[in-house]
Amino acid sequence: MTRRAEIHRISMSGPSDVSGIESLIASGLIKAGQIRAILGKTEGNGCVNDFTRGYATQSLRAMLSCHLSGGEIDRLPMVMSGGTEGGLSPHWILFCETESGTDSGPALAFASAITRDLKPSEIGRQAQAELTCDAVLDAMKQADISRPEDVHFVQIKCPLLTSERVAEADGDVSTSSMLRSMGLSRGASALGVALALGEIDQIPQNSIGNDHDLWSSRASCSSGIELMACEIVVIGQSASWSGPLRAAHGVMTDAIDATSVANLLAQVTPSRIIQGGPERMLAVLAKAEASSNGSIRNSRHTMNEDSDLSATRHARAFVGGLLAGMVGHTELFVSGGAEHQGPDGGGPVAIIYSTT
Amino acid sequence: MTRRAEIHRISMSGPSDVSGIESLIASGLIKAGQIRAILGKTEGNGCVNDFTRGYATQSLRAMLSCHLSGGEIDRLPMVMSGGTEGGLSPHWILFCETESGTDSGPALAFASAITRDLKPSEIGRQAQAELTCDAVLDAMKQADISRPEDVHFVQIKCPLLTSERVAEADGDVSTSSMLRSMGLSRGASALGVALALGEIDQIPQNSIGNDHDLWSSRASCSSGIELMACEIVVIGQSASWSGPLRAAHGVMTDAIDATSVANLLAQVTPSRIIQGGPERMLAVLAKAEASSNGSIRNSRHTMNEDSDLSATRHARAFVGGLLAGMVGHTELFVSGGAEHQGPDGGGPVAIIYSTT
Amino acid sequence: MTRRAEIHRISMSGPSDVSGIESLIASGLIKAGQIRAILGKTEGNGCVNDFTRGYATQSLRAMLSCHLSGGEIDRLPMVMSGGTEGGLSPHWILFCETESGTDSGPALAFASAITRDLKPSEIGRQAQAELTCDAVLDAMKQADISRPEDVHFVQIKCPLLTSERVAEADGDVSTSSMLRSMGLSRGASALGVALALGEIDQIPQNSIGNDHDLWSSRASCSSGIELMACEIVVIGQSASWSGPLRAAHGVMTDAIDATSVANLLAQVTPSRIIQGGPERMLAVLAKAEASSNGSIRNSRHTMNEDSDLSATRHARAFVGGLLAGMVGHTELFVSGGAEHQGPDGGGPVAIIYSTT
Amino acid sequence: MTRRAEIHRISMSGPSDVSGIESLIASGLIKAGQIRAILGKTEGNGCVNDFTRGYATQSLRAMLSCHLSGGEIDRLPMVMSGGTEGGLSPHWILFCETESGTDSGPALAFASAITRDLKPSEIGRQAQAELTCDAVLDAMKQADISRPEDVHFVQIKCPLLTSERVAEADGDVSTSSMLRSMGLSRGASALGVALALGEIDQIPQNSIGNDHDLWSSRASCSSGIELMACEIVVIGQSASWSGPLRAAHGVMTDAIDATSVANLLAQVTPSRIIQGGPERMLAVLAKAEASSNGSIRNSRHTMNEDSDLSATRHARAFVGGLLAGMVGHTELFVSGGAEHQGPDGGGPVAIIYSTT
Repeated sequence: MTRRAEIHRISMSGPSDVSGIESLIASGLIKAGQIRAILGKTEGNGCVNDFTRGYATQSLRAMLSCHLSGGEIDRLPMVMSGGTEGGLSPHWILFCETESGTDSGPALAFASAITRDLKPSEIGRQAQAELTCDAVLDAMKQADISRPEDVHFVQIKCPLLTSERVAEADGDVSTSSMLRSMGLSRGASALGVALALGEIDQIPQNSIGNDHDLWSSRASCSSGIELMACEIVVIGQSASWSGPLRAAHGVMTDAIDATSVANLLAQVTPSRIIQGGPERMLAVLAKAEASSNGSIRNSRHTMNEDSDLSATRHARAFVGGLLAGMVGHTELFVSGGAEHQGPDGGGPVAIIYSTT
Repeated sequence: MTRRAEIHRISMSGPSDVSGIESLIASGLIKAGQIRAILGKTEGNGCVNDFTRGYATQSLRAMLSCHLSGGEIDRLPMVMSGGTEGGLSPHWILFCETESGTDSGPALAFASAITRDLKPSEIGRQAQAELTCDAVLDAMKQADISRPEDVHFVQIKCPLLTSERVAEADGDVSTSSMLRSMGLSRGASALGVALALGEIDQIPQNSIGNDHDLWSSRASCSSGIELMACEIVVIGQSASWSGPLRAAHGVMTDAIDATSVANLLAQVTPSRIIQGGPERMLAVLAKAEASSNGSIRNSRHTMNEDSDLSATRHARAFVGGLLAGMVGHTELFVSGGAEHQGPDGGGPVAIIYSTT
Repeated sequence: MTRRAEIHRISMSGPSDVSGIESLIASGLIKAGQIRAILGKTEGNGCVNDFTRGYATQSLRAMLSCHLSGGEIDRLPMVMSGGTEGGLSPHWILFCETESGTDSGPALAFASAITRDLKPSEIGRQAQAELTCDAVLDAMKQADISRPEDVHFVQIKCPLLTSERVAEADGDVSTSSMLRSMGLSRGASALGVALALGEIDQIPQNSIGNDHDLWSSRASCSSGIELMACEIVVIGQSASWSGPLRAAHGVMTDAIDATSVANLLAQVTPSRIIQGGPERMLAVLAKAEASSNGSIRNSRHTMNEDSDLSATRHARAFVGGLLAGMVGHTELFVSGGAEHQGPDGGGPVAIIYSTT
Repeated sequence: MTRRAEIHRISMSGPSDVSGIESLIASGLIKAGQIRAILGKTEGNGCVNDFTRGYATQSLRAMLSCHLSGGEIDRLPMVMSGGTEGGLSPHWILFCETESGTDSGPALAFASAITRDLKPSEIGRQAQAELTCDAVLDAMKQADISRPEDVHFVQIKCPLLTSERVAEADGDVSTSSMLRSMGLSRGASALGVALALGEIDQIPQNSIGNDHDLWSSRASCSSGIELMACEIVVIGQSASWSGPLRAAHGVMTDAIDATSVANLLAQVTPSRIIQGGPERMLAVLAKAEASSNGSIRNSRHTMNEDSDLSATRHARAFVGGLLAGMVGHTELFVSGGAEHQGPDGGGPVAIIYSTT
């Protein structure tokens, strides 16, 4: 007996539009209890005052409350990422585990785990990385993924520091800036993933937020005010799962590294690397960011000096354009804030695709 | 004897940075008198209150005044286009005509022309299109390009309506909105190009700004407050010119049409369509815009509803990312506002490349 | 027996923060059934992609569903206005009618009414104005306000046109632009108020959106996608109501008309017109907009040319600063989009204050 | 014999519009050699990528080069401040010293001074404050102002750190962030003013950028990339100067402190504190900023969390609205970034007015 995964990518007409998910449930195509995680790419600015994430989550929870208990909803990872700059398109991605089958694997596999609540003093520090590492290993076990190389993406939602939390910690915190704590928390989580996957051996003192040479090729982290634990979704492949779905990943070394993307897509459609099979690309998950040195292959970019428009918005639009051109559709989960997630200025890219 | 073209693409560290051009002149690599046109991609927002265009032009004129007379400077087309969203990089492109040679063509060819000053009542209307058509034909003659199919890009700078100009025309104008007049002027110019190149036979009543099915595959128009005439630079190939430079063009049918871009690049590096020869791609000139129907291949985009960020900024970043990924560098002249310049949501792309 | 009004102004920490209202209900200070209307000033951009309005409404409805039936909630006017630019502070204003008393009036009085659903072809046109006029008269009757001069503010929420609605009307619409329909709908509603209050005798052909000389001194209109009817809240004074609360209004003739504001405030605290009694100013309701001629008392403003920042955001911040300085607190309901609501560049200002 | 001052406030239609100044010179009303300082309020975003400051300066210099030598232009303080949010109006302020007269003073007096070039390691530190203190005392001497209480405003332009300058200092710098260095440099300059004017006795270790309780009531500082020295313009009153012009100042304790503004204006028009004499208010110079604690009189503001719009833009619009309402015109020099310039969230306000 093998487990089976289903992925549903569903358009949304706004942050409160859960009608597509509701229809799937109403039609019997999926059961609410089969949903293991929900990702949402919403159309806010993806920065501090982006209320589309909370609005989408509130809408999801209200809809799901007709089908699941409060506890079940609380345990369901829901990761909203704001920002559909350029031509990117708002959408939901549902990770479902359906009835098991008798086919043999390997195939797409996933599972989630959650750390204990962090103390404010642990956010953005070694402790967070270690707790994350343990949770990644736990989720791998839940997903029956034994080898690190079979992990293709780790989506994490992690906490940040507010002034209340800084006060609670009597100032023993990684930073007292809310904005900066978001980056440090993402970075600490990413290094936790790197540790779990054997991409690094240890996390040196003072490396979080500083040493751009340490990174995970599969971590994708976003920080949110609404939780104190780290929620982890591990996505990969396992022989214990069957069916037509697969996962793969690559790393963009900079913001215009179409070559790496082409190599990744060639795994799916070797004969046509540009838009070889848009309908088979069920989910595209990527991180984008402006390089900190202000240039791309020695040409200056202006993302870090634009006081009208956050660098993360620039980066999502730009990398989103490249990926959409290569893949052939615009429902891509491109997310910003890539500290220790891929090299500086670049980032991980994962695809979930169908072999049929 | 054949004419010879040189293209210099020069980075700028800000709108007033003309040092790269100055160095070229000082070193003797080019003579100021050989410059036939200057394009500049500056880092403003590309919209109404983008002062980087005027600042760059003022800086250029001050620098050139050491080398050219006022009249010569006035006759030199300088087209500044604001907006280096995403990872695009601010740069100048110099079109120079050097000493003639004895090689045979065909090779890159260009020339400029200018219409008479338009009356305010002519802006955005049939009259503008017809004057533009005549000037395109005139510039083709100057460039020794006889066949329309040898024209690969027509860069135009055209006037717009201000409240003073509307008053001057006693209200007999295409629109009394300054912003809307920019689009109508660009559109009228583009249809003038289409007429000159035989892409359309005539310009039907009321088609300017309305009939999205009429467009030129080679027009690129921007409107500016500082002139009342239309300034035209025709870029193409001619047997009267020699040297290693060539021009080619394609049309993106929508914002993610990487296939058309790949086909265009394949003319230069057939064996490697992705980043096959960044250093040979001397200039990449493209138009980008958000589709008016709000979607790309049936997926909703949010560019037209984003009140924080102009749709033209979204579009430049997104298409810029795709092009940069395909070409392999970020000094691309991607410009917004593509009325009748390529199909709705798409746009023309031209490359000037070296065969060596 | 006289009716009695209570006004509660409640801070919100975000669009979903209804805890302040919940506490009032939980403590027994108000009963949910006494709420007659809820206004909310939320922290979005106040423009097309402002999701804080929908998020706040969704949060309100979820909270109220523990206390009221679905039908009662549907009939409760909830008017969310986005935009707390500058130092303005997000807040709710609850209009409650409590147990009647034996004191004599006059005092603050209010009531709401709703038109039938509009046809798309009626939006932004005469028909909308007339329906609004009737509903204002109806709400005045509900509030026991017989004289037009006793009406001090009329808050209206009205529909807009979408492409679906334009199609439904077979193109027989006031405009096919969604953004423009918002202004025409606000303007038609405002002229309906002017008609009801005897400020104008009739609505001349083609005056909606064009004739800036026609305006109401007490209309405040906002358009939203979520309804097809016009929801009207009339605020004034009536001898049938008693208690310590009063209403008054003035009109700012331009964006810096502090003199009119001072005259209005002098009705409350004649001895000290600047910040004479911040705690007595329970609600301040105002409209702000950038003058269409581009200047304020012959000095140019840049609000209409700023492509990075909507003119409505500029106007709310600027007029908000003036009002906050005069009143002495920042929880002010300053709203943008003032077509036919006060003179061009100015707008109505109303206060609800306590005499004790 | 006494010295005499003239102030000319001149509208500008854009950053390059120096025509108003040119006309004054051409008409003989002023001589270029009489100009002692030029302030400009330009319409950019006032943040990092605001090119209107450089564009305005370049335009000024080109115009002045017909009247003054290069050295004279270099010694003339030109302080451009970006940001005319809300209804503020772009303008120039010329400080001229005309022929001396025989009237007796006191009257408006001013002079400028400049420090030596700072080393990168000195920027934002004690050394900068001390050099500034000395230069303020020097300018006071030049202006014949002997008593600190006769100084009403000190406008300073000071340097910032770039990555090159950080490298030059081998990392021995106050901060390696360009943006943060702007604030530290402004703060260090402001504390230098406070020291010179006896507002503080010393600058404690680590107080720059940290101790919000230390501030000058008359400092107004802006940092720019184009200089390494601090340029200082001291404005005050002196018995050695005569004529109808006067200066006065106050301090807003927070962003809505209209009471302090009223008290200041009452010095000019005691009988009518609101818009008592707009035409006599030749120049209004003020600093504005968002309070760091996120609230104004205990009501939350959203300026610090708005990722679409810089807090400095919010603050200029908001305080600008208050000041314009009180003064009665919109050509106000309201500037952002008020570290150690007035209390946290408030700022200095100075007026230059005519007694006739």
